[in-house]
Amino acid sequence: MAASNTPSRDRIVAGAADLISRRGLNATSIRELAKHAKAPLGSTYHYFPEGKQQLATEAVRHASTTVSRILREELDAGPVAGLRAFLALWRGVVLRSDYRAGCPVLAVSVEEPLTDDGLPPSLLAAAEAFDDWQRLLADSLRDRGVDPDRAEGVAALIIASTEGAIAMCRAKRDMTPLDLVAQQLEGVLEGVVGE
Amino acid sequence: MAASNTPSRDRIVAGAADLISRRGLNATSIRELAKHAKAPLGSTYHYFPEGKQQLATEAVRHASTTVSRILREELDAGPVAGLRAFLALWRGVVLRSDYRAGCPVLAVSVEEPLTDDGLPPSLLAAAEAFDDWQRLLADSLRDRGVDPDRAEGVAALIIASTEGAIAMCRAKRDMTPLDLVAQQLEGVLEGVVGE
Repeated sequence: MAASNTPSRDRIVAGAADLISRRGLNATSIRELAKHAKAPLGSTYHYFPEGKQQLATEAVRHASTTVSRILREELDAGPVAGLRAFLALWRGVVLRSDYRAGCPVLAVSVEEPLTDDGLPPSLLAAAEAFDDWQRLLADSLRDRGVDPDRAEGVAALIIASTEGAIAMCRAKRDMTPLDLVAQQLEGVLEGVVGE
Repeated sequence: MAASNTPSRDRIVAGAADLISRRGLNATSIRELAKHAKAPLGSTYHYFPEGKQQLATEAVRHASTTVSRILREELDAGPVAGLRAFLALWRGVVLRSDYRAGCPVLAVSVEEPLTDDGLPPSLLAAAEAFDDWQRLLADSLRDRGVDPDRAEGVAALIIASTEGAIAMCRAKRDMTPLDLVAQQLEGVLEGVVGE
């Protein structure tokens, strides 16, 4: 690709995911999302003619597929490797941002839309993200002979506790909650797959 | 107390905690917080002269002490009873609100303030809430002879996974994530206290 100052669609989406994870969706305008990605408002509306909800939905999908890709790669080496990669990924996000950024999928999940137009597409995308990550982890556990119900439960526990720990770390400005959760989750995995 | 239409300070605080858990803090004005509690803006400013951050901080402390009180009562009967009460409490909040409300402590934890005035008191209150709940659960585990480090880790896992599962349930409009997490956490507790 030729070098260009025109912001790519991807850069705007990644920037939106980052800002939504910092400030929440309701409080963030499309103008602020564009500014955060150093993109002119015009280009942003060019790529996302339906406005903020369209961009937010793409931002959630971007986070979803990025995490799924990493999970898929690392789970090749087994559930423990997948767990470690999942935790390391979020650890990096929180630390690099000095506790200011977190998970955009969680961010849109804990905010009712300000208008009552039914479930927004960003929320549906968040539900799909959690489902995808859970399925990848559960499949990897089943591949190691873990009972399907137990695999589903452990996968849900991994995602839920990581998401919650990210919020606790941000509140405390301290990585201890994620470290404690990581240790407990490794213990749980040892118990179910004997790794 | 005499019947009165004057909203009590407590009712405004409880209403603020509810609305913050639904919409996030950044997106919610003090006017909306007052309206949600059916309180005149004048009474709201009378009780909270410093404005929205003061009310939000009280709202987080209100959620914190409500949950701590329930935990303290139920943990008398042991860690499993405490866990069940903690889960049942959040299950009720999510179901009664038709997946629209959640945890106000998490809500303020995942939002950077829009102004850069250092850490807001509501975030410090959120960190204290997580600490208090974790300490109550960890103390109860230690009382049953669980190793202190393990007790701290399991307590952190309980809080993190419950908080994360609430968000997953809200995204999916389905209680399955919290139910799966509950089952796994009971298993973890059985392993450590043999209940």
